[in-house]
Amino acid sequence: MKNSTHVYNPHVSVDCVVFGFDGEKLKVLLIERTIEEQNFSDKKLPGSIIFEDEDLDEAAIRILNELTGLKNIYLSQFHSFGNPQRTKNMRDKNWLEKLTNMKIGRIVTVGYVALIKISRKIIFESENTAANWYDVSSLKSLRLAFDHNEIADTALEHIRHKVKSEPSMLFELLPRKFTMTQLRNLYDAIMGTTSDVRNFKKKIMQIEGLEQLDEVQKDVPYRAPRLYRFDKKVHKKNTRKLYS
Amino acid sequence: MKNSTHVYNPHVSVDCVVFGFDGEKLKVLLIERTIEEQNFSDKKLPGSIIFEDEDLDEAAIRILNELTGLKNIYLSQFHSFGNPQRTKNMRDKNWLEKLTNMKIGRIVTVGYVALIKISRKIIFESENTAANWYDVSSLKSLRLAFDHNEIADTALEHIRHKVKSEPSMLFELLPRKFTMTQLRNLYDAIMGTTSDVRNFKKKIMQIEGLEQLDEVQKDVPYRAPRLYRFDKKVHKKNTRKLYS
Repeated sequence: MKNSTHVYNPHVSVDCVVFGFDGEKLKVLLIERTIEEQNFSDKKLPGSIIFEDEDLDEAAIRILNELTGLKNIYLSQFHSFGNPQRTKNMRDKNWLEKLTNMKIGRIVTVGYVALIKISRKIIFESENTAANWYDVSSLKSLRLAFDHNEIADTALEHIRHKVKSEPSMLFELLPRKFTMTQLRNLYDAIMGTTSDVRNFKKKIMQIEGLEQLDEVQKDVPYRAPRLYRFDKKVHKKNTRKLYS
Repeated sequence: MKNSTHVYNPHVSVDCVVFGFDGEKLKVLLIERTIEEQNFSDKKLPGSIIFEDEDLDEAAIRILNELTGLKNIYLSQFHSFGNPQRTKNMRDKNWLEKLTNMKIGRIVTVGYVALIKISRKIIFESENTAANWYDVSSLKSLRLAFDHNEIADTALEHIRHKVKSEPSMLFELLPRKFTMTQLRNLYDAIMGTTSDVRNFKKKIMQIEGLEQLDEVQKDVPYRAPRLYRFDKKVHKKNTRKLYS
């Protein structure tokens, strides 16, 4: 994390909530933070204080890359968190002061969110950290550092809101051809719901551009399910907007 | 702006973009800032640096009240702005340093937005500032301080996006009974459009809960137009959600 040509701004940080879908479960990318002298390790979102001379978007992209190896991820700013108490926990404070060699007071953090297909397993290790995917459903039982539980929850709410207003974004997380079960799993994972199989199909098929193919899934050891695809162009053309 | 019991945090500020609808035009609330020694005055959004011991939402509410007298406004955070160059203009920097008695370096600002009915004219004056409503359409020709033009533009985009995904929010800015012209004016003012009279009516009447009354507007010196109202309960009950 040290960089000889840049000066840290210890008052503002960015934190990245990267959600990933592996075809079955919704995951979130967390950093394992080890505090040697206390023989203690816990988890946090990938994030850090910004450089004095970089913009917020730049900082988010740089820091996510440094901590997880991820590149070319579309990170979008969703909310800033500034509770004066958020950096008061001594364990969090000591860890960050050691990492940055700076005195840490109050930090306002700018939250970024991304939603990606998990195409490869991320295990990235640097001197102080390792990055891994964790089930979103397990977040409740993990105590993350700082206010990172609140940040992750708010990011998930943000994604839910986006899916509600633009459900077609779901298809970006699926393979080009997918089964109805994959689509339902994805929807339920994000929304935190358990949809009824028939009702879900009936409702989701109202999305313009979603079509059933004359193909079935191959190489499955059971009755092969039908495949579907989503045609973005048809969707755009036929989606009736209340206002144009 | 001076407060003996609080310490300023000169690294983080909030800026409030308050849009108001007066029944005809969309307005934005700006502060007139006077720089005496330069015999110069220009405009900015109501905003300032936060106190070291207050949360972001608190700061936005306090600062909007101090600068404009407005109370009980629902401010919602929409985006943070952190370009390292945003506080480099010497005129902006000098003004803020004089106002706060602090050395000003880089400031990350958290943007808040509100959309209200203008029920009274705001003319608020404090020692250094005066607050007034300006036409949103005139923003292009006003050079606001710092990056406040960008912040105002981003806030308007945010409101447009919200109206697109939830057009029923428009009714909160209208009287209980309103004319189709008022509704169209409001829609066009926010969206920056010029809607066709017939098309607009046909499309907007698709909103569940919007109904024509057996009443006409009173006390108008021309053929009295019909009145409409919006029933929130009917809207909620009948609005078909793709997913429930």
